[in-house]
Amino acid sequence: MKVADRIPRNGKTNYTHEMAKKRRDFLTEKTGEALEHTGQFSIDPACLPGNIENFIGVVQMPLGVAGPITINGEHAQGDFYIPLATTEGTLVASYSRGMRVISESGGCKTTVVEQYMQRAPAFIFNDAQEARAFGDWVKANFDTIREVAESTTSIGKLVNIQQWSVAKMRYLRFNYTTGDAAGQNMVGKATLAACEWIIANYQTPTRYLLSGNMDTDKKHSHLNMLGSRGKRVIAEVVIKRDILMRYMHTDTVAMARACVMANTGAMMAGAAYNGPHSANGIASLFIATGQDEANVVESHAGILSHELLDNGDLYLAVTLPSLICATYGGGTGLPTQKECLNLLGCYGKGKANKFAEIVAATVLAGDISLGCAVIAGDWVTSHDKYGRNRD
Amino acid sequence: MKVADRIPRNGKTNYTHEMAKKRRDFLTEKTGEALEHTGQFSIDPACLPGNIENFIGVVQMPLGVAGPITINGEHAQGDFYIPLATTEGTLVASYSRGMRVISESGGCKTTVVEQYMQRAPAFIFNDAQEARAFGDWVKANFDTIREVAESTTSIGKLVNIQQWSVAKMRYLRFNYTTGDAAGQNMVGKATLAACEWIIANYQTPTRYLLSGNMDTDKKHSHLNMLGSRGKRVIAEVVIKRDILMRYMHTDTVAMARACVMANTGAMMAGAAYNGPHSANGIASLFIATGQDEANVVESHAGILSHELLDNGDLYLAVTLPSLICATYGGGTGLPTQKECLNLLGCYGKGKANKFAEIVAATVLAGDISLGCAVIAGDWVTSHDKYGRNRD
Amino acid sequence: MKVADRIPRNGKTNYTHEMAKKRRDFLTEKTGEALEHTGQFSIDPACLPGNIENFIGVVQMPLGVAGPITINGEHAQGDFYIPLATTEGTLVASYSRGMRVISESGGCKTTVVEQYMQRAPAFIFNDAQEARAFGDWVKANFDTIREVAESTTSIGKLVNIQQWSVAKMRYLRFNYTTGDAAGQNMVGKATLAACEWIIANYQTPTRYLLSGNMDTDKKHSHLNMLGSRGKRVIAEVVIKRDILMRYMHTDTVAMARACVMANTGAMMAGAAYNGPHSANGIASLFIATGQDEANVVESHAGILSHELLDNGDLYLAVTLPSLICATYGGGTGLPTQKECLNLLGCYGKGKANKFAEIVAATVLAGDISLGCAVIAGDWVTSHDKYGRNRD
Amino acid sequence: MKVADRIPRNGKTNYTHEMAKKRRDFLTEKTGEALEHTGQFSIDPACLPGNIENFIGVVQMPLGVAGPITINGEHAQGDFYIPLATTEGTLVASYSRGMRVISESGGCKTTVVEQYMQRAPAFIFNDAQEARAFGDWVKANFDTIREVAESTTSIGKLVNIQQWSVAKMRYLRFNYTTGDAAGQNMVGKATLAACEWIIANYQTPTRYLLSGNMDTDKKHSHLNMLGSRGKRVIAEVVIKRDILMRYMHTDTVAMARACVMANTGAMMAGAAYNGPHSANGIASLFIATGQDEANVVESHAGILSHELLDNGDLYLAVTLPSLICATYGGGTGLPTQKECLNLLGCYGKGKANKFAEIVAATVLAGDISLGCAVIAGDWVTSHDKYGRNRD
Repeated sequence: MKVADRIPRNGKTNYTHEMAKKRRDFLTEKTGEALEHTGQFSIDPACLPGNIENFIGVVQMPLGVAGPITINGEHAQGDFYIPLATTEGTLVASYSRGMRVISESGGCKTTVVEQYMQRAPAFIFNDAQEARAFGDWVKANFDTIREVAESTTSIGKLVNIQQWSVAKMRYLRFNYTTGDAAGQNMVGKATLAACEWIIANYQTPTRYLLSGNMDTDKKHSHLNMLGSRGKRVIAEVVIKRDILMRYMHTDTVAMARACVMANTGAMMAGAAYNGPHSANGIASLFIATGQDEANVVESHAGILSHELLDNGDLYLAVTLPSLICATYGGGTGLPTQKECLNLLGCYGKGKANKFAEIVAATVLAGDISLGCAVIAGDWVTSHDKYGRNRD
Repeated sequence: MKVADRIPRNGKTNYTHEMAKKRRDFLTEKTGEALEHTGQFSIDPACLPGNIENFIGVVQMPLGVAGPITINGEHAQGDFYIPLATTEGTLVASYSRGMRVISESGGCKTTVVEQYMQRAPAFIFNDAQEARAFGDWVKANFDTIREVAESTTSIGKLVNIQQWSVAKMRYLRFNYTTGDAAGQNMVGKATLAACEWIIANYQTPTRYLLSGNMDTDKKHSHLNMLGSRGKRVIAEVVIKRDILMRYMHTDTVAMARACVMANTGAMMAGAAYNGPHSANGIASLFIATGQDEANVVESHAGILSHELLDNGDLYLAVTLPSLICATYGGGTGLPTQKECLNLLGCYGKGKANKFAEIVAATVLAGDISLGCAVIAGDWVTSHDKYGRNRD
Repeated sequence: MKVADRIPRNGKTNYTHEMAKKRRDFLTEKTGEALEHTGQFSIDPACLPGNIENFIGVVQMPLGVAGPITINGEHAQGDFYIPLATTEGTLVASYSRGMRVISESGGCKTTVVEQYMQRAPAFIFNDAQEARAFGDWVKANFDTIREVAESTTSIGKLVNIQQWSVAKMRYLRFNYTTGDAAGQNMVGKATLAACEWIIANYQTPTRYLLSGNMDTDKKHSHLNMLGSRGKRVIAEVVIKRDILMRYMHTDTVAMARACVMANTGAMMAGAAYNGPHSANGIASLFIATGQDEANVVESHAGILSHELLDNGDLYLAVTLPSLICATYGGGTGLPTQKECLNLLGCYGKGKANKFAEIVAATVLAGDISLGCAVIAGDWVTSHDKYGRNRD
Repeated sequence: MKVADRIPRNGKTNYTHEMAKKRRDFLTEKTGEALEHTGQFSIDPACLPGNIENFIGVVQMPLGVAGPITINGEHAQGDFYIPLATTEGTLVASYSRGMRVISESGGCKTTVVEQYMQRAPAFIFNDAQEARAFGDWVKANFDTIREVAESTTSIGKLVNIQQWSVAKMRYLRFNYTTGDAAGQNMVGKATLAACEWIIANYQTPTRYLLSGNMDTDKKHSHLNMLGSRGKRVIAEVVIKRDILMRYMHTDTVAMARACVMANTGAMMAGAAYNGPHSANGIASLFIATGQDEANVVESHAGILSHELLDNGDLYLAVTLPSLICATYGGGTGLPTQKECLNLLGCYGKGKANKFAEIVAATVLAGDISLGCAVIAGDWVTSHDKYGRNRD
């Protein structure tokens, strides 16, 4: 059949202003759309190989700044101004409001508990006994498999291999640490090497897929609530009762009660997060700082915990079990994204834990703010004010 | 305690180049980061109220184009070039590859099945009997409640109210249709009006939260797999066996087998999606077109279905139960975002179903491509080529 | 191939002492096991058609009695002695202990919120549009479909039909009320009639399965947490602080804190119930009263809610969304089972809600007892005492 | 308040015929129910301490026999007659029918992949860093903790301790092997000893619960799908096409298609099992053989896998990840229950794997039978015949 013309490509000069314009012109001819603003950008196309193909320009994503927020973390310490890229009105103002409550309450603590990145191949055999025998062999040969896997990377370390049998299949899940990189590609490459070694050395014939979907890459899963894909990071604050009342017109008792109702609702709904809106802060901060934007689906899962203290203050904590982020590689080095990371003092190696702590603190701030808005009845009116509810 | 200086604000001139610069200068002074590129943009700050607060500039998000993809939908018909904003190398190339297979196979069908947007308040009583009685009253007064809710909007229509009792609480879930808007704010406003009317007219004292977390806003939930938050949209294709072999070096039989293994892995993992990577395409297309970027967490859930046909061709279908998208309002009217929507002929009212169909078709293309890469062993090597695996 | 001899059958006299003995003799010959006790029973085999095939005798299941428990329900009112059939030491004693706390605190309230029973056929078409069109047709013809379905039963009432599209399939879920019967067979028969009518009257060719697994019969599902398969029943109590201290040596504050930790653990684990052990009481009471014993898997799901009151008392509530039970039909009429139902004043028509309330109250008692045992450190020691921990 | 009289107890002679009668008389006086059949049993009350408290008699549970079924397992080898205790008509006949298909196809293979039993305490600290530090200490002291735990048991072996941080809490999950016992009490006792040692030796003050609900005892959980509570056992069969047609009037192609539709339905429903009805066989076999009857809720979870082979035969496999069963201790030694275990050659130590294989094979048989009945349209008619649909 007749298929429409393909986008112009030119192997040698794909990443030039000329080539981007040629493609825009092609699209304008095909669709009539002028692409005026898309073609205006200050970044150098030559820095884009590795980030995009068929490059035509940029989306200009509005950037606001929330904060300051006081963080007393292990890696993030001090007052931070948080860059948030979003098109959702109210978002920056709301996060900023929550940050004020945290800061006025003395700041939040942040803790990175662990980090892993996974690739999860699956092998198929003739029957369940063969699959189990294979699993035993993998256990017995773990040291060699680790050597082979780690030979492909100077950073990734294979910590362990989880295993599950289903019918005649054996699912493996390689858990690596990956330093300051998110590491999906790194562990893919390492696991491929390991699997090829396995295939070459295991005597029973088998077929395998490099991913049997237990990674679980680019999708939320309950397994990631348990197993930490990315960093497991916790942000905690003790909100002072009078501070909450002053800035939020909300009592800590009412806040605690609302948490209980929201927990039950989340449990009934089978929700990936039981707080108000982890995804907003994560998505905005991810886009601002050049994170892989799809990772918000894995990163937004978590648990919001609360405890009403005897003195009337409220302990609140966000636990994000699978926050996937990086401070170098991927989109982090692009000019605007790098500037946003620099705002946080988070660009480059050795900064990933610091960045993870900032993300968790940001989520905590956003949940305080929206939680209080729901209780105090400000939610809709503030969106009317900032977000210009359209209808 | 001493908290750091707050971001400069100026009610009257918040959205000017001067004010953005003033804030950037403030941040530069605080952090030492020059913010050179962030301050370069072609869009007019005056168009940003309603989209961002504390505006300082833009993130320049690289934009590539995938396609063309042939879609034989009800609303989307023809060959489309798909704008994808991403920093993940390989992504555009991979989606483009899958689009080729679809187009060469004659294109995909797309169907929007239904659409809803929810707000889910929760009411608390003295005991379970009171909560049940309240539920009965809400049912009996549905017509009036609908009138009150719809009085706040010219577009939103309240279709029904789901109800659940837990302990002494009654959770409601207001299901609206919202035309071509995503509608979260619209339904928030309508439900607030309804709840205030309820409180004023129901005789038993009660407290309520405008959201008891069964919406479930900005988080994935199993409830959304069932109840459709946003549009429930399906994209289907019959992949010709020889086409798959020619472009993907993969047999349809191998593809079907891989689907089975991946399904089982997803079920074991408790994953929100059983295909390879719905989130990548959705996130990239959402950012390009000014969608609320956090909605990818709800939108990425779904089911990839397959059937090996007798002639060796492969039926493949993506069902996205909760795709939240809009073609006007929010960020869709920003200059670069609007251009991307125009590329698809999707800007403005009456285009939301068309856009939803295009998103589903894009996801289908991406899953074909990555699925085949995993099978054929191209996955890591293509990332080495396009994504420059760093280590 | 050679397959072993089949169990003796005799259509006319299958349910006699002679036939049971003949089968036992057959088994003794095949296995060497004398089956001495199995053959001793007081019930008349002639009452067993409809309950069992290949009858050989009975299992003698030990029966204990817990209570009394004071229930102030709508249907169950008064002090009840609860028959529990179990082989797990400590169980009866533990439930009894919890019942004492409830009774001394003034009893528990119980509320049946709603009841449904489902059959969920699935239809397959050529594509998603056909499936959607079919769904619209089902909606338009609901009244006739209901008439056809209800023509097969004098009790079952078809309340509504839920629908879901996935790929080219349309899943329906017929929600019936079924009076005092559990109703699985009743709704199967009614839905079969409805489906046959649909097939005969819908013009587009389609195939269907009477169950597409969204019922979800004989398995726990999140859908049943939401949609109530069986009765949704709630038991609530306000535990007096001094009563808990006197009988359980536990403070209500400690109990509330333990609930929070257990809730979080259950959420992390993805558990079907967040309290200590709903299944124990349900299974034991089900076996004692002739319920379908497999239904415990659907019935045990639920939510344990708590609230620490200002006066130091503790509000505790069990919500069981899918408690499947009956007071006539099935095994309820067998001699020992009927006696157990009579103990509760629950045999026969018009008693199902009363029975459901008693089950929920029992679960509440068991959770109070085990919850306190875990806190007070009695758990292991009491099992040592009553259950004779073996090793 | 006035609470009703308590059940008569007598520490020394609790387990005598006299005492049982005294309690029955008490209940008769209170309720008017004669308890005639409940008081008739052949087992000696003296064997009941450790199994029941407040003993009053027995429930006579009808027992039927299904089979024979040919099992070619590692531990179960030969033709087995399966005792099933149930009051659900059709059940025994249906399982028997499926067993015939398996046997005529040459029998099924069975494999026990692994076994664990868990106790999962939770510890609470002042903040997340303390909780993490505690986790590190537990890892560092694992050998000693294991010694302490294992000192309480001659059989249980502590394999590892999983850990999760949420907020300021640290959840542990002790994974033991427990030989031929189910082991819940054994691991409770061992973990209590370990926790007490931890409390005595860890310097930072902490409180703990012996169960933080991640065990997850007596409830289904996704964690148990992954982590195997009890035995992970698989039963596989290759069903011959002509055999299925002869006995079931169903084609293997139709069966494969039905599996696909059922899988999707189960995924949509969020079901714990994707086959027709694992719980029926497990519950009936559990009651017959003295298993803890509440464990069916954990045991019924699993995955039914299928593959249509090139020759038209159908590979079918049941994977039960958390089958909890025992062949000694608990109720297994009661007279009728022991006879049923003896029928299978499964009473006593060293038989638990054999028994687990038989359970899995039974589930497989039941799913074949009901699956075919749904396809062939026999489902309702067979219940009409055997189960006497009442209405």
